[in-house]
Amino acid sequence: MPGSTFDASQIQCIGFDADDTLWQNEVFYLQTERDFKDLLLDIMDEEMLSRLLFKTESDNMELLGYGAKAMTISMVQMAISICPDIAPYKIMQIIDIGKRLLKVPTQMLPGVVEVFEYLKTRPYRIVIITKGELNEQTRKFLNSPLDQSIDYFVLPDKKLQTYQTLFRRERIDPASFLMVGNSPKSDVLPPLELGAFAAHIPFHTTWAHEDVPLPDHPKLLKLQSITQLMDYV
Amino acid sequence: MPGSTFDASQIQCIGFDADDTLWQNEVFYLQTERDFKDLLLDIMDEEMLSRLLFKTESDNMELLGYGAKAMTISMVQMAISICPDIAPYKIMQIIDIGKRLLKVPTQMLPGVVEVFEYLKTRPYRIVIITKGELNEQTRKFLNSPLDQSIDYFVLPDKKLQTYQTLFRRERIDPASFLMVGNSPKSDVLPPLELGAFAAHIPFHTTWAHEDVPLPDHPKLLKLQSITQLMDYV
Repeated sequence: MPGSTFDASQIQCIGFDADDTLWQNEVFYLQTERDFKDLLLDIMDEEMLSRLLFKTESDNMELLGYGAKAMTISMVQMAISICPDIAPYKIMQIIDIGKRLLKVPTQMLPGVVEVFEYLKTRPYRIVIITKGELNEQTRKFLNSPLDQSIDYFVLPDKKLQTYQTLFRRERIDPASFLMVGNSPKSDVLPPLELGAFAAHIPFHTTWAHEDVPLPDHPKLLKLQSITQLMDYV
Repeated sequence: MPGSTFDASQIQCIGFDADDTLWQNEVFYLQTERDFKDLLLDIMDEEMLSRLLFKTESDNMELLGYGAKAMTISMVQMAISICPDIAPYKIMQIIDIGKRLLKVPTQMLPGVVEVFEYLKTRPYRIVIITKGELNEQTRKFLNSPLDQSIDYFVLPDKKLQTYQTLFRRERIDPASFLMVGNSPKSDVLPPLELGAFAAHIPFHTTWAHEDVPLPDHPKLLKLQSITQLMDYV
């Protein structure tokens, strides 16, 4: 079994990423992107629209952060910049497309509820650590079937320093912490660098902003699905 | 002295609101609103524009939450709804006006740094509790001269239940907690209802969404300025 030398005996606290680890997320963003591009296919082809949206969102990320509102503003900005005489009703359609993202139901991924039931029988502190917009992420958690007394942290980003601040505030010792998630860049690399454990669960579509290769590391578990976590903790 | 019967001996933790309690905020939003209205004065008069913006933001609040991105989306939506043939470059100007809000410097209010210096000599746990958008609020704190090891919580709102969740997670006993802020609705009434202390510091412009009258209450301090807090704690 790959990772069978993984020693979980030091782990006391397990953190879970939320989007595309516990519940569907990227699929809704991809649908939003498709709906947006459909409005502009008379201006340029789909691939160019995708590339330009990626660039616009990246350029805005420092200022606007992550989430549906940031994406909405990026889409409006991009539409006007490539089509300076765009009909205003199309801008309104873009806003509606963006707002729809904030109304999507919380769709749990397979195995998640089972894993959380199992973890109730185990002695770990469980936390959820997600990044994005507060109102958007809070709504998803409130609408999920998960135990609402689980500590749920929404961070502005998942950089090293942001994890460190959370660890300090929550008195979490990185040496006894395991982070579980689908994003190498956000959920795996920073915790490993801080001396924590990490478990990677691949998701079929991982956002281009998040996609980096995974190292081999004694504290890293490369799983195929979240239910495999129960073999280790 | 009004509130001289206020008994602070039980207080162990003091929470401060941030916007318009520690630093300037509303003044920048009001400037944004003026800049926005200037673009639309050929459509309707200023007072009607103000009223409609208030309504649009209120209608969007459940979905979009608080902050500059929500305001930006509301402004674009309102501009198109009252002017269906608006020039797209004007929409771009609205987005720029909204983005400017995210770049404003952190301007501390008078007395705040002095009060925080004083509190270092006192035995209280100090926390900052603000609501809004994570990236926007986090940037303001990072750019402030305040001790960055102070626990800084950005909440999606300041409703009773949201305070309760924070108190549980942070093991804060409401009976020994004092909340300090300028908003009756957000900083005073919910803490009082949960059995905590509150100190109200008036701010010359308090956002219309936040303006409600203040009760008389044995656990409520009505101060004239933040420096007066040092007379009580």
